[in-house]
Amino acid sequence: MIVLFTDFGLEGPYTGQMKAVLHRDAPAAPAIDLFADAPAGNPKAAAYLLAAYAAWFPIGTVFLCVVDPGVGGRRAPVMIEADERWFVGPDNGLFEFILRRAKRAQVAAIAWRPEFLSVSFHGRDLFAPVAARLAKGETPPSRAHQPLRHVDWPDDLAEIVYIDHYGNAITGLRASAMAKESVLSTASRSIAHAETFSAVSPGAAFWYENSNGLVEIAVNLGRADAVLGLKIGSPVAIAT
Amino acid sequence: MIVLFTDFGLEGPYTGQMKAVLHRDAPAAPAIDLFADAPAGNPKAAAYLLAAYAAWFPIGTVFLCVVDPGVGGRRAPVMIEADERWFVGPDNGLFEFILRRAKRAQVAAIAWRPEFLSVSFHGRDLFAPVAARLAKGETPPSRAHQPLRHVDWPDDLAEIVYIDHYGNAITGLRASAMAKESVLSTASRSIAHAETFSAVSPGAAFWYENSNGLVEIAVNLGRADAVLGLKIGSPVAIAT
Amino acid sequence: MIVLFTDFGLEGPYTGQMKAVLHRDAPAAPAIDLFADAPAGNPKAAAYLLAAYAAWFPIGTVFLCVVDPGVGGRRAPVMIEADERWFVGPDNGLFEFILRRAKRAQVAAIAWRPEFLSVSFHGRDLFAPVAARLAKGETPPSRAHQPLRHVDWPDDLAEIVYIDHYGNAITGLRASAMAKESVLSTASRSIAHAETFSAVSPGAAFWYENSNGLVEIAVNLGRADAVLGLKIGSPVAIAT
Repeated sequence: MIVLFTDFGLEGPYTGQMKAVLHRDAPAAPAIDLFADAPAGNPKAAAYLLAAYAAWFPIGTVFLCVVDPGVGGRRAPVMIEADERWFVGPDNGLFEFILRRAKRAQVAAIAWRPEFLSVSFHGRDLFAPVAARLAKGETPPSRAHQPLRHVDWPDDLAEIVYIDHYGNAITGLRASAMAKESVLSTASRSIAHAETFSAVSPGAAFWYENSNGLVEIAVNLGRADAVLGLKIGSPVAIAT
Repeated sequence: MIVLFTDFGLEGPYTGQMKAVLHRDAPAAPAIDLFADAPAGNPKAAAYLLAAYAAWFPIGTVFLCVVDPGVGGRRAPVMIEADERWFVGPDNGLFEFILRRAKRAQVAAIAWRPEFLSVSFHGRDLFAPVAARLAKGETPPSRAHQPLRHVDWPDDLAEIVYIDHYGNAITGLRASAMAKESVLSTASRSIAHAETFSAVSPGAAFWYENSNGLVEIAVNLGRADAVLGLKIGSPVAIAT
Repeated sequence: MIVLFTDFGLEGPYTGQMKAVLHRDAPAAPAIDLFADAPAGNPKAAAYLLAAYAAWFPIGTVFLCVVDPGVGGRRAPVMIEADERWFVGPDNGLFEFILRRAKRAQVAAIAWRPEFLSVSFHGRDLFAPVAARLAKGETPPSRAHQPLRHVDWPDDLAEIVYIDHYGNAITGLRASAMAKESVLSTASRSIAHAETFSAVSPGAAFWYENSNGLVEIAVNLGRADAVLGLKIGSPVAIAT
């Protein structure tokens, strides 16, 4: 299975062209869209999301990851084997928590280059063909590479990293690291824990452990982003 | 064929994770996205849409339906066989018109539970595995269940239930129950019938029978939602 | 491979129903979404996009193209073989540049009609079944047809024809027809060429050859549409 994690949007031509390449090069591997709206041009926020959501997928999955504001510049294209899953994409911090949390990980720079490499769309021209080959069990040419590390990025990020279709605001905090008594504070509001939407009154804000283990802020029967004025990057304080 | 009818959005992680489960459990069954933007958290409006659009699909189709504001609460998870199609989802009114209009229908509560059941994402953890098994011809464990019925919901709903990509406003009224001479009234405007867009002047509003049999309000070369101030829930009166 | 080029949106019921037909009629042919957000109801702008993006796909590809504001009116449904690719859709100018740029092209009117043909959704009822048959190597009934030509449309269009997910503004100008010294002017701003995003300062606007050969206006780490007030149809002048 090839899982797509990008900031391309599903509409527009980018995801479709990448899927055409995947189908051409690995027709038997299903391509699954995980995020097409990862935080645009924001590898740091995307890194927390990717690590939380990738862990749910089975061993052997190939992740094709393109949040790549530096495309055309000097960042290296990499392929990473981490705990028996593959990750392909730019070396710009996007894989920081894949690497930090893996029991075993190996990073290589992609040495293969296509006949035609556009300046702005390495997802289609470089990363997708490599992901397809990995999905078929092949290993594209590579060379040893020291990835750029971001030791200053915290293990858990007290910021909003994603707003979903319902207006729920996902943080970069793992719920496993929080006590359920913890109260969050954002936008001058205190936000206590609840197990689920129906446990609070309509219009009330609460936080809960989402289905992939992240702390998520929601409003029962409302949009947390609108009610609380949250967007990607909004800080969240842990009040108690 | 497994048809997805949800309010998840296609972007974001929800539809993708559900498709990953469907592919794992029923790799030979194609998953088709029908609505990923069914009226959010609104099983009543969604129920009129679902009944109108499901009827178009062939016998044997499995519908995986998740408009589920009460997830984590006490509503039952159900599977319904209606006129040789399967419907899987929450018992919250979403299937009211499937049941009301079916010649033969059988409702059962899903008795199977997964090893891990998140509080907020039964679409992935519970409904998708059940839909996959039904698509393979298997019958997951179930028990007799009296579904919650909504006898007060009218057979046809004189409200907007969906705004499409072009700004056309779909009502919960079946065109087969309307005379073509009927004039609708909404937002202080009278709206007469026309067969098609090109039959009215640019900028003019009209209603027509859409391709799935519902009454739809449109503006030739314009957005009906913007021109008439329509949104989901806006009332429509049948003036004559 | 069947490539979808429409203004339907991916959400909503239209793309899904069309894919259900494609799967029913040509289950072995993968359906790839290229654009689901082609310029809505705007065959002229869409024609420049389609020609630029179709050229990238391999020989044998079938393009199912629906930007069809005249559906239900008198425009003909056509199927076109151009340089060993197939194009199916309405004869409303959408294929102008496919025809103008092809070495060899043959246009025919689709003579087949389905049992049920809705007034407003020929994509599902007429064009998708024809595309599926072409993908299987069959030739649906057709008759000779003189397509409507638009000789007044320029070879390259100095207007914005698409705004992408990042706010980049794609023009109808082919970069191959421009000198790199050319300066564009739009919204009272002069916009010079750069190879790539990282070659200009944060916040600076520039133009570059996008990955499909069109001139695209972008802002490094910003949204060109918002910064420059661009939308589909905005004129672009070639200042030098």
